[in-house]
Amino acid sequence: MKFEVTILGSNSALPTTKRYPTAQVLNVLERFFLIDCGEGTQIQMKRFRVPMSRINHIFISHTHGDHIFGLIGLLSTYALQGRKSDLHIYGHSKLEKLITFQLELLETKKQYNIYFHTIFGKETQTLFEDDKVIVQSFPLKHGAMPCAGFLFKEKDRPRTLNADLLDYYNVPIRCRQSLKMGEDFVTEEGEVIPNKKLTKDPPPTRSYAFCTDTAPYKKIIPILENVDLLYHEATFLKTEAKLAKATYHSTAEQAAKVADEANAKKLIIGHFSSRFKTLNAHLEEAKSVFENTHLAEDGKKFSIELNR
Amino acid sequence: MKFEVTILGSNSALPTTKRYPTAQVLNVLERFFLIDCGEGTQIQMKRFRVPMSRINHIFISHTHGDHIFGLIGLLSTYALQGRKSDLHIYGHSKLEKLITFQLELLETKKQYNIYFHTIFGKETQTLFEDDKVIVQSFPLKHGAMPCAGFLFKEKDRPRTLNADLLDYYNVPIRCRQSLKMGEDFVTEEGEVIPNKKLTKDPPPTRSYAFCTDTAPYKKIIPILENVDLLYHEATFLKTEAKLAKATYHSTAEQAAKVADEANAKKLIIGHFSSRFKTLNAHLEEAKSVFENTHLAEDGKKFSIELNR
Repeated sequence: MKFEVTILGSNSALPTTKRYPTAQVLNVLERFFLIDCGEGTQIQMKRFRVPMSRINHIFISHTHGDHIFGLIGLLSTYALQGRKSDLHIYGHSKLEKLITFQLELLETKKQYNIYFHTIFGKETQTLFEDDKVIVQSFPLKHGAMPCAGFLFKEKDRPRTLNADLLDYYNVPIRCRQSLKMGEDFVTEEGEVIPNKKLTKDPPPTRSYAFCTDTAPYKKIIPILENVDLLYHEATFLKTEAKLAKATYHSTAEQAAKVADEANAKKLIIGHFSSRFKTLNAHLEEAKSVFENTHLAEDGKKFSIELNR
Repeated sequence: MKFEVTILGSNSALPTTKRYPTAQVLNVLERFFLIDCGEGTQIQMKRFRVPMSRINHIFISHTHGDHIFGLIGLLSTYALQGRKSDLHIYGHSKLEKLITFQLELLETKKQYNIYFHTIFGKETQTLFEDDKVIVQSFPLKHGAMPCAGFLFKEKDRPRTLNADLLDYYNVPIRCRQSLKMGEDFVTEEGEVIPNKKLTKDPPPTRSYAFCTDTAPYKKIIPILENVDLLYHEATFLKTEAKLAKATYHSTAEQAAKVADEANAKKLIIGHFSSRFKTLNAHLEEAKSVFENTHLAEDGKKFSIELNR
């Protein structure tokens, strides 16, 4: 029942030897989602033992190089490995052009299908949904560049049955599904047993939000409300607030304010400018606003526990 | 007076965490040449302290992904760093299409010019030449994929003047240049002093040849003749000779035979298949044919001394 993100790259535009450009893998109940794919992502996946072949969905925030230049290499590796399962890629329309052109020009022989799903970018959009998980995109504020944040959420779980009381009231098996869905139980004698007597609340659903690249953006606060784990970019420190504003990025303090206003449970900051050799100042600056802040570091994993 | 190659990537198609895909930097008398540019090359350059900004010439053997996927990232990094100096890229025609399309689609703002030079691939071609160095390409044998090898050579040096004898014969300064070029000296009295009496042989010119990807190819032996340092791919071992043949690659033994037949001084083997965790078998197999064989390993440097 995992809900865990692995940081594959934590740097902004110019990679360093310790911080690769942006990429993360999120495991939600054994669904593996790749989020962004900077240069070297496939190597980082090997380094940190991510099960590369189990990724069927790739979400790309925007088409700046440090978020996409590892994608063509990954797709080619899948082709060489003989991958057969479908791959879904979610991104803005340029991404499809970029990848399709390369695959065609290089005559990449592959046995799997790629399905591109366009993020239109003006409003919240459901990109992926199955019985247990939903993924939505929402617009960020990155100047002229269309850029999407992503919200990964578990769906509400069925209610947990209380086995002892089911026996006591002789609830037949055929009625149990409706109990899980919250309905009351009516005995053969017509007595109504309230659902709450026979079931317990399920564990709360878990959620992860990914916000990069972006200036601080009030409009996303309601979307992020109560999120368990928030990744928010913090390219700069508040001493570079002017530069952050000019380039549509955030400072560590601004990232922390977003977490605070959204009532997030935990914050990861990342997408650090390569000008910073160490990141203590980022951490301190963010913690002064939002205590439960952590640094994105290549290879680090962050889990959300089921019962917390 | 350096002549030194740094291995940035030594693996074939699928990168591993220890062996990145093909890339090398060659320093010939402070001219820095990048040869191939697999994914992660810019990160490897940082790791091994290659002066990235001093590279003005990039030679690409062919358009398989493991030789080119790091190029767009490098060009974008140059743009972000505000590079202004011209960059020359030598490759087959597809490469220009691939890179131009990406730069345009991604609206890469750069302040430097890129000049593409097409390798036509049917015969030996001079790609670069200045007063001291010449770089030529020659066709390799990689199936339907046009693929070039590269030969980097110092040009003949002027003859070394013997200062004592110049004084003895009162050779005027204006005559010294022609002495360096090998001409005899004629005194005011008309006496002819043979050049050999006044000069010494200069140090021999140095050369490096790069051959990947290729099946063993007899036609290149005359081009490689007496080369100081030969890099030849050895994707497989002789136990996989059939696979090597089918994929137009070489075994370690075949690479060593090329070095032996060409009378190379020293051999580096590389482009190893990712199926090999260790490379002792490659080294042993090659050494049994050509003793002075060395393994390409990421970060390793190979120098050719001036007076050897």
